[in-house]
Amino acid sequence: MGKSEIGIGLVGSGFMGRCHANAFRSVSGLFDVQAEPRLRVLADINDEIARDAAQTLGFEQSTGDWATLVNDKGVDIVAITAPNIFHAPIAFAAIKAGKTVYCEKPLSTTAAIALEMTQAAEAAGIVTMVGFNFQRNPMIKLAREIITSGEIGEVTGFRGRHAENYMFDPNVPHSFRTDIQGGGALADIGSHIISMARYLLGPMAEVQADCRTIHPTRPKSHRTTERAAVEVDDMTHALVRFQSGVSGSLEANWAATARTMDLSWEITGTKGALAFTQERMNELAFWSGQPGRSGYTKIEAGPAHPPYGQFCPAPGHHLGFNDLKVIEVAELLAAHSGGVTCGPDFREAYEVQRTVEAMQQSHASRQWVCL
Amino acid sequence: MGKSEIGIGLVGSGFMGRCHANAFRSVSGLFDVQAEPRLRVLADINDEIARDAAQTLGFEQSTGDWATLVNDKGVDIVAITAPNIFHAPIAFAAIKAGKTVYCEKPLSTTAAIALEMTQAAEAAGIVTMVGFNFQRNPMIKLAREIITSGEIGEVTGFRGRHAENYMFDPNVPHSFRTDIQGGGALADIGSHIISMARYLLGPMAEVQADCRTIHPTRPKSHRTTERAAVEVDDMTHALVRFQSGVSGSLEANWAATARTMDLSWEITGTKGALAFTQERMNELAFWSGQPGRSGYTKIEAGPAHPPYGQFCPAPGHHLGFNDLKVIEVAELLAAHSGGVTCGPDFREAYEVQRTVEAMQQSHASRQWVCL
Amino acid sequence: MGKSEIGIGLVGSGFMGRCHANAFRSVSGLFDVQAEPRLRVLADINDEIARDAAQTLGFEQSTGDWATLVNDKGVDIVAITAPNIFHAPIAFAAIKAGKTVYCEKPLSTTAAIALEMTQAAEAAGIVTMVGFNFQRNPMIKLAREIITSGEIGEVTGFRGRHAENYMFDPNVPHSFRTDIQGGGALADIGSHIISMARYLLGPMAEVQADCRTIHPTRPKSHRTTERAAVEVDDMTHALVRFQSGVSGSLEANWAATARTMDLSWEITGTKGALAFTQERMNELAFWSGQPGRSGYTKIEAGPAHPPYGQFCPAPGHHLGFNDLKVIEVAELLAAHSGGVTCGPDFREAYEVQRTVEAMQQSHASRQWVCL
Amino acid sequence: MGKSEIGIGLVGSGFMGRCHANAFRSVSGLFDVQAEPRLRVLADINDEIARDAAQTLGFEQSTGDWATLVNDKGVDIVAITAPNIFHAPIAFAAIKAGKTVYCEKPLSTTAAIALEMTQAAEAAGIVTMVGFNFQRNPMIKLAREIITSGEIGEVTGFRGRHAENYMFDPNVPHSFRTDIQGGGALADIGSHIISMARYLLGPMAEVQADCRTIHPTRPKSHRTTERAAVEVDDMTHALVRFQSGVSGSLEANWAATARTMDLSWEITGTKGALAFTQERMNELAFWSGQPGRSGYTKIEAGPAHPPYGQFCPAPGHHLGFNDLKVIEVAELLAAHSGGVTCGPDFREAYEVQRTVEAMQQSHASRQWVCL
Repeated sequence: MGKSEIGIGLVGSGFMGRCHANAFRSVSGLFDVQAEPRLRVLADINDEIARDAAQTLGFEQSTGDWATLVNDKGVDIVAITAPNIFHAPIAFAAIKAGKTVYCEKPLSTTAAIALEMTQAAEAAGIVTMVGFNFQRNPMIKLAREIITSGEIGEVTGFRGRHAENYMFDPNVPHSFRTDIQGGGALADIGSHIISMARYLLGPMAEVQADCRTIHPTRPKSHRTTERAAVEVDDMTHALVRFQSGVSGSLEANWAATARTMDLSWEITGTKGALAFTQERMNELAFWSGQPGRSGYTKIEAGPAHPPYGQFCPAPGHHLGFNDLKVIEVAELLAAHSGGVTCGPDFREAYEVQRTVEAMQQSHASRQWVCL
Repeated sequence: MGKSEIGIGLVGSGFMGRCHANAFRSVSGLFDVQAEPRLRVLADINDEIARDAAQTLGFEQSTGDWATLVNDKGVDIVAITAPNIFHAPIAFAAIKAGKTVYCEKPLSTTAAIALEMTQAAEAAGIVTMVGFNFQRNPMIKLAREIITSGEIGEVTGFRGRHAENYMFDPNVPHSFRTDIQGGGALADIGSHIISMARYLLGPMAEVQADCRTIHPTRPKSHRTTERAAVEVDDMTHALVRFQSGVSGSLEANWAATARTMDLSWEITGTKGALAFTQERMNELAFWSGQPGRSGYTKIEAGPAHPPYGQFCPAPGHHLGFNDLKVIEVAELLAAHSGGVTCGPDFREAYEVQRTVEAMQQSHASRQWVCL
Repeated sequence: MGKSEIGIGLVGSGFMGRCHANAFRSVSGLFDVQAEPRLRVLADINDEIARDAAQTLGFEQSTGDWATLVNDKGVDIVAITAPNIFHAPIAFAAIKAGKTVYCEKPLSTTAAIALEMTQAAEAAGIVTMVGFNFQRNPMIKLAREIITSGEIGEVTGFRGRHAENYMFDPNVPHSFRTDIQGGGALADIGSHIISMARYLLGPMAEVQADCRTIHPTRPKSHRTTERAAVEVDDMTHALVRFQSGVSGSLEANWAATARTMDLSWEITGTKGALAFTQERMNELAFWSGQPGRSGYTKIEAGPAHPPYGQFCPAPGHHLGFNDLKVIEVAELLAAHSGGVTCGPDFREAYEVQRTVEAMQQSHASRQWVCL
Repeated sequence: MGKSEIGIGLVGSGFMGRCHANAFRSVSGLFDVQAEPRLRVLADINDEIARDAAQTLGFEQSTGDWATLVNDKGVDIVAITAPNIFHAPIAFAAIKAGKTVYCEKPLSTTAAIALEMTQAAEAAGIVTMVGFNFQRNPMIKLAREIITSGEIGEVTGFRGRHAENYMFDPNVPHSFRTDIQGGGALADIGSHIISMARYLLGPMAEVQADCRTIHPTRPKSHRTTERAAVEVDDMTHALVRFQSGVSGSLEANWAATARTMDLSWEITGTKGALAFTQERMNELAFWSGQPGRSGYTKIEAGPAHPPYGQFCPAPGHHLGFNDLKVIEVAELLAAHSGGVTCGPDFREAYEVQRTVEAMQQSHASRQWVCL
């Protein structure tokens, strides 16, 4: 007899939708999952697009109506990669239908709605997960283990950043990214460094941010040179104080001309330090004070750093971005099977969103804002 | 109507077998393949192992007899990841059955047998491919494009290496790797840097190598401390002359204590230069002589470097080792559908093996050996 | 006939005093100076220490009384490397005596005194220079040239830091560094990144800082375990807005466990970007957007980057820290001979100090402070 | 009473002459030397050039006749930076005059003459030193200490290189560098990596090299486009076996387009490894196998690595190329005062030259050559 199955319903087939599909298809060949994911239904904006995507991505059925998917008996997990504005209605429906919900970040367009979603899921006892995929990296898990075990002593300082360059050109047009609701560099990628900082160092207590729109106008769309005002930040620098007392700074920047993926940080402790950048995601820099031999050690990912070994039995064979999504999905399946949330769930995503909004408020008020 | 299908038969379910299975499962969600691979039959050393592996890796059927797989009507492509000694018999049978053959490196245990395999495949008009997966990297394709287009001028020098540390400990026991037939660092990983050098710079004309066994004995197996003599090289340094006149050096080393994947090279030309290491497989260093601004530029992989864009529409999202295998399989499927060999085929693998043996002969004779 | 001479009087013979002496001894062999520096008088805390230091460092005379040095007819330039508290009285006396004044940073213990010193020097038409030596680096001069020439377009963002680890251990005792007047990480090394930011991007308009004392007590001295409270910052993170509108962040940190000299920054523009760290002071990272070939180019210091060529006619031969001081002294001698201030003078040092104090005020008030 | 003095006579005032002069001027302010060097006489090709150079570099006297310098009573150390062809006659005269001899590399134009010079010096009991300055680097001394102490276990492999690009352009004209006697990349810079390999791993036993002239002709001089044949190598790759049994490879290359100072090596041992490049001369990469934490540690130069502390009491303040020459001169002065040769002396320089010639012979004969 084969394994039991878990039915997957995927809403959306863009960048992240494809990424989810790939992960669900690969996971059981790499991880020892309790039940095999079965790609049941793909929903997209209309029937035709959904049908084509289902065929490409290997789903059995398709629909132009996400409600059909959500209420499909064969669907156990609803994966949401639709535009941000649809996250809430789909999630509420899925929660109501008793499905496990796996949602891309940001959870919603405002922290208030995100809180409602969280409360609904918790009230219903639903397993949830939000796609902060960078945390799945074995090197990030290793960093957390090193911090938690006390190998770097008591943490004293943090300096983090998520900087990319996809909006550095003033002629990149408006899109959902620049929408006033939930848009801007801070919300879009600042959320990654905020969630990672929380994962490694715990919650923040106070923030003070300086948001800035570098390019005041952008073309209304790809099809016109007519320009409209930009109301979201291109770059935000923030001061942060963690509840633990650790202080630091944090940057979100989608106009960082030279950077494609500088999700990076340095964490300093009383006995050691760690540094990481997603630009070299298979490495972690670790400092421990050997007299006359001290310096950052470049730890390369390998089987000693779970779950790297699921992908390859030998060190030095890099994991890639899509592999992080496979890890996420493996953890999702385990949580679903066990009925216990394991990673960034709705509540965590709400906390991240609340932090983003606190930073925006601090910018507007030019005051520190407590969380 | 769905896509047509290509039946896959996989022999072997170790590290590389899992890697093949994963690639066949993922490829159609990432690449626009003409026909969908269907995981038909998995063969392994006995029925039980084969059955378990088939279930884990998602194959429909299993068998303890590879001949059954090879002759299965539903199998169009035979993928060989069995121990090296079985490559030849399986391949000959598959060629006879008219199947496309996809074989892991080395093609066989001697160049002579590899040549027979090559001639058999060519006589039968069979599409073949051999798993020199590191060449599938978009950054390696980019390097070749830069060289071919003349951007670095006429090539003048080469310095290459494949260095890892999986055998640096004298207590790592004997295995197929240390078998006198086809074993040793030069054959095992030297073949990667040889094939990559050929891919980038063309065939070699003359070689002179110095092979060395660092640890003269190793435990007979994991289960004993009894030791037996090692008859293969742990480390080989070689001088090479290419047919183009370019000279250089090359190293194969599985006892390189600090290295997990230093498959690296620098290629110098009259106008520029390139450098690469698999340790940072998403980067290519490119030098062009801007006055006062010259230096190595760290090019990061992105959609400008096909087929990166199949995996992700944005730059900075790293590819991993397993993704290289997906690219390989996509190219295999295209070759199968088109009936035309596209990449390192049996003949190329034979040439690599012939070069390995020429190096071994040059060591034994202490003379330069012409190819 | 030989060159004419410039008489040097040096006050202080510690780390910086030795560094000054070395620079004055070397400069005429490396730079084409108009007049040869002659090491006339060395002053230190008493006659004996001064005599020993004079002999070691090659000064003709010595004195335990700096006033004697300042009023010596043979002294043309007074170099001040005494403790911070003595900078003002020595400088005032030197100004009165009409001497060129070359003072280590910080200029004084408060911005108010620094302003008085500046006004006195300006009123007397005195040439002054302050030792912000890191700016003398050919790579920093190159960075400024690239920015000024518009090669990276309009500057959009800044992220800077000076992080070292000399105080990360809570058992490093109190010293002049932790003195409430002029002490703390922000004043001690934050001043370097502030002055460098000003050199590259112009003056700041507003700041908001978060200062923090990591180790609340330290031993009173090397000779006791008795501890006293620390009243200065170990680590400061700040938000900054430049007059140009550029925004960014800045860190000063002497408890950065893993860092010995991370005086580093990244500057982003609309067409390119630059990055630098003093940890690799002979390199500048420069990004310009070549399609498919973009990435940071590692420019290595060479004769194309003046005044590197004074030290070596070939590229790749690194300059060291002490060489930066030789450049500083060469520029000082040129300024003295020409009668025109050339680099960071008293006024610039005052502006840096004023910025430090504005940051401290912003921390105390938890408000943005305008400069 | 001041220190006693050591009279310095310098022959030649080009790149290396200036470098010597600077080192002799600086050394007593940085190192605790027993006697102060006094810059007595500078000799160059004629009286006028010598006079100008003496004034610039701070020598008391000058002469157009090196014999005058060598026999000057006030000269204790004869420093030879004249063209290679003059090394022997000047050295023989200086030995005869009982002077300590400090000579730039290569010691002479042939190993045979170098041996005569060595025997003459040894017979006369003369202290000698040859300018293999890169060995003076505290990080190289640290590397040797780590190797000698057994921290990386038994050494198993070596891979070294000295690659620069000063001759990569075919229009760089002939000069002393391309002279058939003593010229070529192998002799010019290969000697550096050979001497460093010997310093770290001891003498070589056998070599096999492949020398190559990339640009068959070059302009006869800077003043003409007329071209003449090149008879020396632009690039040499060699296999080496050390007397200890260690094997490896070595490259000398002055046409390495992208490299300005890649004097680099990796040394592998049974328990650890080391890697270095002069491109980042203040760093040493050290691997030791901490389980799950292993990787190359980037050790940064600091006071823990003598004689770094002579230049600066704090880590992170880089040494530069000229500082290496100061260390060399400090060791020379100590050797002179103590009457005992301390570093690469004439015999060592002869051994290096003999190795160069053995490589050239092995290229000509296409055979391994024993040393």
